[in-house]
Amino acid sequence: MSKPQNDRAEGTPEAVQLLEKEFKCLNHGFVRLVDYMGNDGSIVQAARVSYGKGTKTVKEDRTLIRYLMRHQHTTPFEMVEFKFHVKLPIFVARQWIRHRTANVNEYSGRYSIMPDEFYLPENDVIKPQSLTNRQGRSDDEVPAEIRKRVIDILNDGQKYSFDGYNEMLENNISRELARINLPLSLYTQWYWKIDLHNLFHFLKLRIDKHAQYEIRVFALAMAEIVKKVVPLAWEAFEDYILNSITLTKTDLEVLKRYIPKEVSEEELKVFDSKYELNEFLEKLSKINGKD
Amino acid sequence: MSKPQNDRAEGTPEAVQLLEKEFKCLNHGFVRLVDYMGNDGSIVQAARVSYGKGTKTVKEDRTLIRYLMRHQHTTPFEMVEFKFHVKLPIFVARQWIRHRTANVNEYSGRYSIMPDEFYLPENDVIKPQSLTNRQGRSDDEVPAEIRKRVIDILNDGQKYSFDGYNEMLENNISRELARINLPLSLYTQWYWKIDLHNLFHFLKLRIDKHAQYEIRVFALAMAEIVKKVVPLAWEAFEDYILNSITLTKTDLEVLKRYIPKEVSEEELKVFDSKYELNEFLEKLSKINGKD
Amino acid sequence: MSKPQNDRAEGTPEAVQLLEKEFKCLNHGFVRLVDYMGNDGSIVQAARVSYGKGTKTVKEDRTLIRYLMRHQHTTPFEMVEFKFHVKLPIFVARQWIRHRTANVNEYSGRYSIMPDEFYLPENDVIKPQSLTNRQGRSDDEVPAEIRKRVIDILNDGQKYSFDGYNEMLENNISRELARINLPLSLYTQWYWKIDLHNLFHFLKLRIDKHAQYEIRVFALAMAEIVKKVVPLAWEAFEDYILNSITLTKTDLEVLKRYIPKEVSEEELKVFDSKYELNEFLEKLSKINGKD
Amino acid sequence: MSKPQNDRAEGTPEAVQLLEKEFKCLNHGFVRLVDYMGNDGSIVQAARVSYGKGTKTVKEDRTLIRYLMRHQHTTPFEMVEFKFHVKLPIFVARQWIRHRTANVNEYSGRYSIMPDEFYLPENDVIKPQSLTNRQGRSDDEVPAEIRKRVIDILNDGQKYSFDGYNEMLENNISRELARINLPLSLYTQWYWKIDLHNLFHFLKLRIDKHAQYEIRVFALAMAEIVKKVVPLAWEAFEDYILNSITLTKTDLEVLKRYIPKEVSEEELKVFDSKYELNEFLEKLSKINGKD
Repeated sequence: MSKPQNDRAEGTPEAVQLLEKEFKCLNHGFVRLVDYMGNDGSIVQAARVSYGKGTKTVKEDRTLIRYLMRHQHTTPFEMVEFKFHVKLPIFVARQWIRHRTANVNEYSGRYSIMPDEFYLPENDVIKPQSLTNRQGRSDDEVPAEIRKRVIDILNDGQKYSFDGYNEMLENNISRELARINLPLSLYTQWYWKIDLHNLFHFLKLRIDKHAQYEIRVFALAMAEIVKKVVPLAWEAFEDYILNSITLTKTDLEVLKRYIPKEVSEEELKVFDSKYELNEFLEKLSKINGKD
Repeated sequence: MSKPQNDRAEGTPEAVQLLEKEFKCLNHGFVRLVDYMGNDGSIVQAARVSYGKGTKTVKEDRTLIRYLMRHQHTTPFEMVEFKFHVKLPIFVARQWIRHRTANVNEYSGRYSIMPDEFYLPENDVIKPQSLTNRQGRSDDEVPAEIRKRVIDILNDGQKYSFDGYNEMLENNISRELARINLPLSLYTQWYWKIDLHNLFHFLKLRIDKHAQYEIRVFALAMAEIVKKVVPLAWEAFEDYILNSITLTKTDLEVLKRYIPKEVSEEELKVFDSKYELNEFLEKLSKINGKD
Repeated sequence: MSKPQNDRAEGTPEAVQLLEKEFKCLNHGFVRLVDYMGNDGSIVQAARVSYGKGTKTVKEDRTLIRYLMRHQHTTPFEMVEFKFHVKLPIFVARQWIRHRTANVNEYSGRYSIMPDEFYLPENDVIKPQSLTNRQGRSDDEVPAEIRKRVIDILNDGQKYSFDGYNEMLENNISRELARINLPLSLYTQWYWKIDLHNLFHFLKLRIDKHAQYEIRVFALAMAEIVKKVVPLAWEAFEDYILNSITLTKTDLEVLKRYIPKEVSEEELKVFDSKYELNEFLEKLSKINGKD
Repeated sequence: MSKPQNDRAEGTPEAVQLLEKEFKCLNHGFVRLVDYMGNDGSIVQAARVSYGKGTKTVKEDRTLIRYLMRHQHTTPFEMVEFKFHVKLPIFVARQWIRHRTANVNEYSGRYSIMPDEFYLPENDVIKPQSLTNRQGRSDDEVPAEIRKRVIDILNDGQKYSFDGYNEMLENNISRELARINLPLSLYTQWYWKIDLHNLFHFLKLRIDKHAQYEIRVFALAMAEIVKKVVPLAWEAFEDYILNSITLTKTDLEVLKRYIPKEVSEEELKVFDSKYELNEFLEKLSKINGKD
């Protein structure tokens, strides 16, 4: 029984094929698109209710979506909803859950027995502490024997804690207590539902190279999905958010002598929307202190 | 292009037929279901991820949904999403928007010219101020000539303000300023998206007889829609929320001498779930001070 | 430098003395009130802005607060804010963080080295799996030798994982990776800020006897604090929420033949507010089907 | 009774003097700081819990606050809370309430009689519709006689509707109905509570020159207050948010040939933090495609 096609947004054929497909992440994890509501058309539809009869000319959807993204008119993007099934290590889940504007149902270690599945890093992501970034990994190499030792420590620790867990369960200790020594590398899973605006915010922070590698893997898998469901919104997100650069007041103090007051008509042809062109010219004015 | 049917929740045939249908509300308003994601099955699906392998027996969906509702396990209900298109007077919109956990795109009087449509109450809802309820209407009658006068005042005022609006627009005054004398009885419209848990909360407050009549009309129209999309969840909501009664500590002080310590097996047959039966017995114990 | 006393709410002297005091929880944890804004007076102040000039008689604060609580007029309670510093095991933190309407800053294992502090249960809270409640502990005893074995398993596992952590740190493995085998029983800490309405909701769920023992300990400690800061709101919360009982439609089917249609004037004297009295009478009517 | 001074944040003397002061806005409105919790010190305090023992050197507060602002580490800013009393026209309130992460108690026209106070624009803010910005005013002049006519229309309309309101009240029509023809220019008032992070977001959008003049007036008044309560955070907000410029991928295509790959040591002296300096150099690399 499928729903009618009037102004419902059914997604591109590519998007529909994504449903239920497991995108493998790390050694045992995955992201799976369970359901979604809306597509690029729903963003436009919601934005246009604001313009009502006042909109005499039909703006092209892409131009409108790009305008909304540039101007942080975020509410139309909230009209698209995604629901994912995710299997992920607990330490990743602990970073993920900090994004509060989302809905979650997680596997419960109070109700159920946790399966024996743990995250073990691939050899090439075992890295030393960064010296410049207190919270990250360096790009330097770790000697092979130390990498091996890390894997052994992790493996042994996981086995040791799971044996203890099993022994407590065999002695009929309550699950909610028996689980407390299980490590953060244990896999859990959840259903996670979020609107597109908040998902973009999540992706911006978690695709970033300062994010921990293990959560980036999941963010990148979701990005592949989002790209297919809302290709125009994704393109705008890349052009105006992911690949934009924000110059602070101090940055501008240094750069303003390099940035011209005007540029040639030829150079401006790169803008395919007069709105974006005007915004660029406004920025030039502002940088050059005419604002 | 319809989406595949695996674990996607497509709603009952009755629900699908609701899409795009305008439910008339008041003289010019409506509620229209634009899209939805999920159904009773999605609530169960999300709840069961919590139970994981631990759930050996397949609980019946209805029993599970009713259990979740009674125990305020609200997150599985958040997994169903509704999107409505609503046309409503501004004074109703002002009450409605107080429900913050929702997404909104409203027609904008800054961008667009407001249409000439105003709320006028039906004769029989023109009521005097309640004496017992500072914020409501009495059930008493208003004399016919006064009712007529009310209609005239409202009609004249609406015409007067719209003429002023038009004159300012004709003089090319900016729309964002010209609109400021339009009355709260003017119609606006919006797209409104909300999850089922928060929608139930909205409906509980706005179906209540203390809610203003004009917002109740919209809440009741949405209730008709919700009932069709998630019939099991709606039934549980009626039985355990809408038709429940909460007795305070003081109420119980009065009633405890009337409430028996035990009731007969015969009387307990009304409970079709052993969970609900046990919860009832726990309440009896608690009322009788054994807890 | 203290703030002036006009309509600012400074709290009772008892409340002020709570600031900075560590309330010990479990073996290494604590709750500490870092700051708060508002008191019972702020709830009343915010509620009265709704009544404006219309409120001719000065209602007593207590009566108003109790009225707001009974009627779920929750927004005035949102006007009081609490900020706690909490040290807690990670498995408790994982339950706690599910309350989304709050602000959190947590100690970071990516930035900093985790201290060697783990939760070990007291002997008398080591309990078997409940047979009736899939997610809880039974009240039954666990044989002494098994309890001892549980403590040994936990202790050994904690030591084992911390030794592995240390060895990885000594080998200069990045902190964000070295920490992944630390167990859920490890202590973390955070600043947690929340408004009173949402705090009441948290306390209602986490003081409940179905909540896991280890989070109840923290909820009960916070309850002691809240009680001192907003004594009137707390009293209303106890009388109308914690100690209330909700009877479902089915419960009422059983009990209605026991609940009288009327009770004597004498019995009604227990109500010290005419509003609450009227609400009680309305409930009697509703139960007896006159509504 | 004042609270102790340990790690509570009491604000600067300038901030304390702001309490209860009415900042006049428009003809009858105001913003008044009713209470606040925290100051610059609370932001630092919350951020440092993340660094725990790992932070060996004491970073200067200002540097830390500026770092947090640049990197959108927003949670420490959520630890400061403001409560305002605001009197504002309803059409402004309707824009304002779209900011959902805040707490509100508004004067109720259902409970209380609305006072006879309306917004009338000053002569010099009566402007024609903008031709370039569909939702705004042009900077052009409106002829004096038309401005006068606008004032007359607004005045007359306000008087007309208030007379109607009064007549209905005199006939004992319920307040919730009598009010529906009152115009959007009527003043209402509310208590509004919000954390600093969300307040900055509000201010960014509402101080912007594209915001409607009438809400900008309120935003600017609140900015004066915020500046005094959290001077360091405000400075960072100005430097890194308000006065920053975001260059999109397309903007950078045009400008990259002007932006140098390196700048002189001399020019870099403008950065007083090595972190900010490094971030600037990273941006140069990224613009020049080395990233």
